[in-house]
Amino acid sequence: MGRLSTLFDPETVAVVGATDREGAVGRAILENLKAGFDGEVVPINPSRDEVLGLECYEDVQHAPPIDLAVVVVPPDIVLDSVRELAAAGTDDIVVITAGFAETGGDGAERERQLREIATENDLNVVGPNSLGIMSTPTGMNATFGPEDARSGSISFMSQSGAFITAVLDWANEQGIGFQDVVSLGNKTVLDETDFVREWGDDPETDVIIGYLEDIDDGQGFIEAAREVTAETPIVLVKSGRTDAGAQAASSHTGAIAGSERAYEAGLEQAGVLRARSVQELFDYARALAGLPEPESDGVAVVTNAGGPGVLTTDAVGDSTLEMASFTDETIDRLAAAMPDEANVYNPIDAIGDADIERFGEALEIALEDPNVGSAVVVAAPTAVLPYDDLAEKVIEKVETHDTPVVTCLMGGKRARDAETTLRESGIPNYFDPSRAVSGLDALARYRDSSERTIDEPRTFDVDRERAREVLERARRRNDNRLGVESMDLLEAYGIPTPQGEIVDDPDRAREVAESIDGDVVMKIVSPDITHKSDIGGVKVGVAAADVYDAYEDIVARARNYQPDATITGVQVQELLDLDASTETIVGMNRDPQFGPLLLFGLGGIFVEILEDTSVRVAPVDEGTAREMVDEIQAAPLLRGARGREPADVDGVVETVQRLSQLVTDFPSILELDINPLVAGPDGVQAIDLRLTVDPDELDTEEP
Amino acid sequence: MGRLSTLFDPETVAVVGATDREGAVGRAILENLKAGFDGEVVPINPSRDEVLGLECYEDVQHAPPIDLAVVVVPPDIVLDSVRELAAAGTDDIVVITAGFAETGGDGAERERQLREIATENDLNVVGPNSLGIMSTPTGMNATFGPEDARSGSISFMSQSGAFITAVLDWANEQGIGFQDVVSLGNKTVLDETDFVREWGDDPETDVIIGYLEDIDDGQGFIEAAREVTAETPIVLVKSGRTDAGAQAASSHTGAIAGSERAYEAGLEQAGVLRARSVQELFDYARALAGLPEPESDGVAVVTNAGGPGVLTTDAVGDSTLEMASFTDETIDRLAAAMPDEANVYNPIDAIGDADIERFGEALEIALEDPNVGSAVVVAAPTAVLPYDDLAEKVIEKVETHDTPVVTCLMGGKRARDAETTLRESGIPNYFDPSRAVSGLDALARYRDSSERTIDEPRTFDVDRERAREVLERARRRNDNRLGVESMDLLEAYGIPTPQGEIVDDPDRAREVAESIDGDVVMKIVSPDITHKSDIGGVKVGVAAADVYDAYEDIVARARNYQPDATITGVQVQELLDLDASTETIVGMNRDPQFGPLLLFGLGGIFVEILEDTSVRVAPVDEGTAREMVDEIQAAPLLRGARGREPADVDGVVETVQRLSQLVTDFPSILELDINPLVAGPDGVQAIDLRLTVDPDELDTEEP
Repeated sequence: MGRLSTLFDPETVAVVGATDREGAVGRAILENLKAGFDGEVVPINPSRDEVLGLECYEDVQHAPPIDLAVVVVPPDIVLDSVRELAAAGTDDIVVITAGFAETGGDGAERERQLREIATENDLNVVGPNSLGIMSTPTGMNATFGPEDARSGSISFMSQSGAFITAVLDWANEQGIGFQDVVSLGNKTVLDETDFVREWGDDPETDVIIGYLEDIDDGQGFIEAAREVTAETPIVLVKSGRTDAGAQAASSHTGAIAGSERAYEAGLEQAGVLRARSVQELFDYARALAGLPEPESDGVAVVTNAGGPGVLTTDAVGDSTLEMASFTDETIDRLAAAMPDEANVYNPIDAIGDADIERFGEALEIALEDPNVGSAVVVAAPTAVLPYDDLAEKVIEKVETHDTPVVTCLMGGKRARDAETTLRESGIPNYFDPSRAVSGLDALARYRDSSERTIDEPRTFDVDRERAREVLERARRRNDNRLGVESMDLLEAYGIPTPQGEIVDDPDRAREVAESIDGDVVMKIVSPDITHKSDIGGVKVGVAAADVYDAYEDIVARARNYQPDATITGVQVQELLDLDASTETIVGMNRDPQFGPLLLFGLGGIFVEILEDTSVRVAPVDEGTAREMVDEIQAAPLLRGARGREPADVDGVVETVQRLSQLVTDFPSILELDINPLVAGPDGVQAIDLRLTVDPDELDTEEP
Repeated sequence: MGRLSTLFDPETVAVVGATDREGAVGRAILENLKAGFDGEVVPINPSRDEVLGLECYEDVQHAPPIDLAVVVVPPDIVLDSVRELAAAGTDDIVVITAGFAETGGDGAERERQLREIATENDLNVVGPNSLGIMSTPTGMNATFGPEDARSGSISFMSQSGAFITAVLDWANEQGIGFQDVVSLGNKTVLDETDFVREWGDDPETDVIIGYLEDIDDGQGFIEAAREVTAETPIVLVKSGRTDAGAQAASSHTGAIAGSERAYEAGLEQAGVLRARSVQELFDYARALAGLPEPESDGVAVVTNAGGPGVLTTDAVGDSTLEMASFTDETIDRLAAAMPDEANVYNPIDAIGDADIERFGEALEIALEDPNVGSAVVVAAPTAVLPYDDLAEKVIEKVETHDTPVVTCLMGGKRARDAETTLRESGIPNYFDPSRAVSGLDALARYRDSSERTIDEPRTFDVDRERAREVLERARRRNDNRLGVESMDLLEAYGIPTPQGEIVDDPDRAREVAESIDGDVVMKIVSPDITHKSDIGGVKVGVAAADVYDAYEDIVARARNYQPDATITGVQVQELLDLDASTETIVGMNRDPQFGPLLLFGLGGIFVEILEDTSVRVAPVDEGTAREMVDEIQAAPLLRGARGREPADVDGVVETVQRLSQLVTDFPSILELDINPLVAGPDGVQAIDLRLTVDPDELDTEEP
């Protein structure tokens, strides 16, 4: 257990601001605590001697030693209360009171001070603006919500208190139970990363779930969650997925809108399963809380009803799972056990007159097939298959096999008791076949992500000092937007660039061209001219002998087009064989929550029109860089589709990693695009570069 | 009402094969009928005088006149029973008995005869292999299922009887009611198209829903459904969507696997909303059954809880709807009505202490905003917002506005009574915000599809006789696979092809080249040589003077490569400027259910790697052809993205329509690909053609 364990397992809980006034939050919390908490409850209020039959203390100094304090006093005295608690040695504090950063102005200042006090005194503060916390093992309900939680193995955090009250009422009806529940409030001190770490260490928590509107420290969260998800699954609803939703979230909790793609990448890299709705959150959680991991992706479907069997098969087809292909032995055994009209291939249809015995036998035979990694029991109501008996039979078969099984006993009232029986044995029942399969799918996806090893990012031997000088030079000349003249930044990090240089006189241009094998490309270099081709500022395939004249011509055209343009010079560059190559883009921009976000895609229409790109949070290891290249839809083009020679994919993957190292080393780089990075059969070359630097961010020297 | 109205509204129902034997289907049906049917129930069984207290007749001749007969006799006497019923003047017959086509062999022959008898006597036969039918207005439950249906305005057909029993139990619990229910069974006579037409004419049916594994006659279904959906929404679960599911469906009911893309296109063209799961089916149906159409796509969200408000906003972002942008007046009114901390922009957050009055006022102000087309009420449980009172308040506000409103009163038990109250006023309540929004989205999508006019396909002035001759010629030489030598098929239908012809001597080759302005392309034409370029069988940019030699060379290379190849000749064709053009593919193949399926996409990687294509069932009108071109992801390339001159999109759209006419006129064309159809700024040209013809299908002369 982590350092927060005392938060969830106090012996004495004080309610600072306790009252017996009807409708007051301070009364609701006290009532909830009194109703079920195993330990001592201490009301604190200077104007009461007794509250709801409990002795009340005027302040913390006069009260007995307190492990956890729940603060519900008015906003302007919260800070004093917290200071007093710290002085009295109480480290764990939940601030219920609202009126902090969410109201702006004074509230924001108050929140800043609260953070300061907490840091100085090393306090664990939940909130402010929190519904409170719960922990079912001790029966502690330190919230002002109308609902208590059932006991179970799911730990649950939420950035919305209302979300907790809405979910608990429903979960109680569904028989879903919880270990700990936390309303995160404004997350001034403790946030999602702290609770993920805490519950990752808690042997009683089987699944961590949450509703979040933002993640404060994306990199820290990825690191914590990646560790935790090796053992404990995390399922999150991260709202504000859409533009409209992000705007709504920002006006709700003041969540800063990081980009949805950053969250998508970051949560995936963290090994977090993402749910898109409340229903999906619990569909996943119920499967993850009670079932073993599937050993393979083959699903067996056992049913007494053809139509629902087909629907289930469709759901498997939509998922990352596949229908198990039965062994000959299984098929023979099923054929022997079932009537002729039954279907002994997957989905197994034991047909409408199947009784408990036949159904049970079909399930048993399926579970014994080595190709079956998980199973769905799908039933429609018939007179000969009472659901209560079916539930008992399923439990009997499941107990002797280590295979995850979910059920879909279709129907309403007649399924309720059976559902309860199944749940008590850890088997989730779903009304809809597609939801049953999505539960199994969550198990398999969690298994895959927990088994994936993320290596330390590779550290290339680079010339960090040279790169720092390029950025320093730009800073000195007050230049935030750099281009092709800064290609030595890439060279310093070992990213191949074509032979050539930027020259500012025609003689030097010819010298450079003569040192290059074959014809050259020449381009005007000017921060003021963007459409270089349109003004005749680009010449392709110039022989060395013609370079002098070409130089003069290019510069003349540029001056003619824009007399006041700053002309840095002309780039003279090796002419690459682009026909055999594919243009790619490797880029980076910084996300407010997750930091450097790498992007990969094929150039031109693929990025601009088809938006076929992949994104990851840097730094990335080799496996992750390779995923980026593999997952774009157009990836087969790089691998040599349509009779082309395959491009140097390893070179692309290495470039992604080198860029990852560059942007991690230099926080002053805000945005960077290598566009195109040309990938040919024999290697890659960065042809053009744009980057934006932050003039106020100083890059440190090499450590 | 259509001709099937008597099926659902009989005065006398006979059970042919009625019995009082426990567990028998013939008893279950009789019991269900006795329990609620308004009319007379007549048991027929030669070995009984009385069944379950009703007078039993030995056969149909001796019974009183019967409107509807439910046949449950053993399979081998079903045909005799049906003949007797026909003779006695009973036209409406439900055959429950199984053992027909689904068992193959004798059963298939029995089914063929059943169809014959029905056709001869003009009978309305449901089944065989059916669970039966229900109609709630008369309380008729002529099924052997364990559940009765509640009364309501949804009519429901299912190709799986088990699906009906599974759904009814659940629907009863949810308070969802039905008008008519039909278990389609083997669909020997009456099928989905018949019931769609019937219910389309039924003023009591507000929504038609169904579970289907196949559609027998795709074109007939599209025609019927398109008419019906102008007035009555249809929502279908069509299973077998995935490859695995299609295989499962085929072994379940012997459904022939038409392609999923054909169903997708056909159902969309028919105006049918497609649900992917049972839950979605009813989420849509509940909204469509009770709510008016939204006048615009703007959604107002009214909530007392920030988090759920954000989730709802995300769901709107995922849908085809959008968050309504409130007028200044609305914002002023909301600001005046609500506390400072409330959010008066959309989503409206009346905050946690909102009582019924404040909540109701917020809803009313939102409903009066002209930009609001629909609204979602989202609530989390609080002490000051009892759900029962909230339900009453929502109903009060909804009654004075003609705007569709759905609710999402989050929670479990505490929401149940309110849910019932809302349902009784036609307002569906959903547990999950995303499901509530999907209900509204279904309304808007239905509105759009019912408002879309589909014109008569344009009839071009074509040379049908010339096209017929091309196909006839191929048939005479026993050639099923035609290629570029049949380009006159396209010319006959007014699809532009490049200048040129196929020649079989070098002098003629030169003559043709001389008649063409500029250089030419030359290609070997041989049914036996597929990779023409690889063997040197293609020459691009040949000057007229060099054509003679090029001809000799091409033929020599072909002979050298494959001495026994049939060489039709050499194609001499105008050289097009491909740099300014885009390659597209326009194709067709025939689907077993839907007939000719048109395909459009950009050529090469777009079709082969990115699978970026659009599909429609022919014939198509201009609007549909234009949709095909517009909906591919790469469409901006045709419209002149990235600085290119726009291609002749109208020419592409016209080519799609001309091809639609061609393949509709000639059923012998099984498959056809124009690949590429080159689309440039000045027009389109079909460069290459492949088609497969059915030698046994004779094309009729022009009518």
